[in-house]
Amino acid sequence: MKIVIVGAAGTLGQAVAAELGARHDIVKAGRSSGDVTVDITSADSIRAMYAKVGRFDALVSAAGSVHFGPMDKMNAAEYGIGLADKLMGQVNLVLLGRDTIADGGSFTLTSGILTDDPIRYGTSASMVNGGLEAFARAAAIELPRGLRINVVSPTMLEESIESYGPYFRGYQPVSAARAALGYAKSVEGAQTGQVYRIWG
Amino acid sequence: MKIVIVGAAGTLGQAVAAELGARHDIVKAGRSSGDVTVDITSADSIRAMYAKVGRFDALVSAAGSVHFGPMDKMNAAEYGIGLADKLMGQVNLVLLGRDTIADGGSFTLTSGILTDDPIRYGTSASMVNGGLEAFARAAAIELPRGLRINVVSPTMLEESIESYGPYFRGYQPVSAARAALGYAKSVEGAQTGQVYRIWG
Repeated sequence: MKIVIVGAAGTLGQAVAAELGARHDIVKAGRSSGDVTVDITSADSIRAMYAKVGRFDALVSAAGSVHFGPMDKMNAAEYGIGLADKLMGQVNLVLLGRDTIADGGSFTLTSGILTDDPIRYGTSASMVNGGLEAFARAAAIELPRGLRINVVSPTMLEESIESYGPYFRGYQPVSAARAALGYAKSVEGAQTGQVYRIWG
Repeated sequence: MKIVIVGAAGTLGQAVAAELGARHDIVKAGRSSGDVTVDITSADSIRAMYAKVGRFDALVSAAGSVHFGPMDKMNAAEYGIGLADKLMGQVNLVLLGRDTIADGGSFTLTSGILTDDPIRYGTSASMVNGGLEAFARAAAIELPRGLRINVVSPTMLEESIESYGPYFRGYQPVSAARAALGYAKSVEGAQTGQVYRIWG
C-alpha cells in the first residue's frame, strides 16, 4: 500500500512510519519536513499535497494542535484554534482526499484520551477529540467505494512524559510504538467507524 | 430557582418550560420571541441577554443549528455552520454566563443521538454533538463555585416525525415531554459532567 502519514516527524508519526513502513510505501508529510509539506489548517495546502502525492491507499493523520488553558480564562477564539486545526484540519484531509484515494482505501485520524477522561486545562482538547470521533462514526456510513475511516485515541505517550507528565498524573502512559499498532489495525484491518482507544 | 431557557419557543424548549415551569421561575429566551431575545452565534447578543437577565440559577439551552447534507458534497464552510452555532453558540452560553450564574448553578446543553448512532447526511450533527458532550465532561471538572454542567442527548421527538421521520427510520421516537425530564434531572439533580441519553 501507498500510505500518506501527516505529522510523520512527530513522536507518534515516527512510530507509525516505523510500524507501517516495514510492510508498505510511506509518503511522509509534515509542516516543515518530509517528502511533501502540508499545513492542515489550509485547504489550499492540503489540495497541493494531494496533487503532489497522487493516488494513494491510506491516509494517516497524526497531526493537529489545540489550545490548553484554564477554562475560566478561555474564550471562543482559543477554542477556535483547535476547531480549525486538530478538528477541521483532519476533517479536511478526508474531505479533500476523497477523490484521489483508491477504492477500499482508509483514513485514520487522531483524537486522544481526553474525549472520555478529561484533565484540567483540557476542555478544548476534549471538545475537539469528541467531535472527531463522532464525525468518523458518521462519515463511515456515508463514504463510497469501500472507503473506511477510523480514529485512534492514544493516551499520554511515554516519550512525552517530560513535557506532559504533570498534566496527566495517574494516567498509564503507552509507548508510541504501542500506539502505532492502533494505526496498523485501522489501515491494514477491515473495520470502519471505530475509535481505537490505546490507553495502556 | 430562576431558570433561563434558550430556545424556549421550540418543540423541546416548550416542553422543558412546561416541566420546569411547574416548580420554578422561567425566563424564556429565543431568537425572535420570549422574555429576552438572543442570537447564540453572537457573543454580544449573549452578553446582552445575561445583562438583562441578571443573576440566575440555571441555564438550559435547547438551541442550535447544523447543516445536514450528503457528506460527499459537504465542504468545510458547511461544517462551520454547526461549529459556530450549535457547538460554540452553546459553549459561549457557558463561557459568558459563568460570572452571573449563582453559586451551585447549572448549565444544561443539548446534543442528540447522532453522536453515537449516526444517520445519512448527519456528519456535521454528529461532529457537533460529540464535541459538546466531551466539552461538558471536561468543563465539569474545572467549573468553580459548585457550578455544574450536563448535556441532554434526545433522539428524534415524536412531535418532529413529520419533518424528520424519513431520516430516522427505525429510531424509537420520544415525546418532547419525556425528553424534558432529562433537563429536569440535570437542573434539579446534583450530577455534573453527564450525558443524559433520552433514546426511548
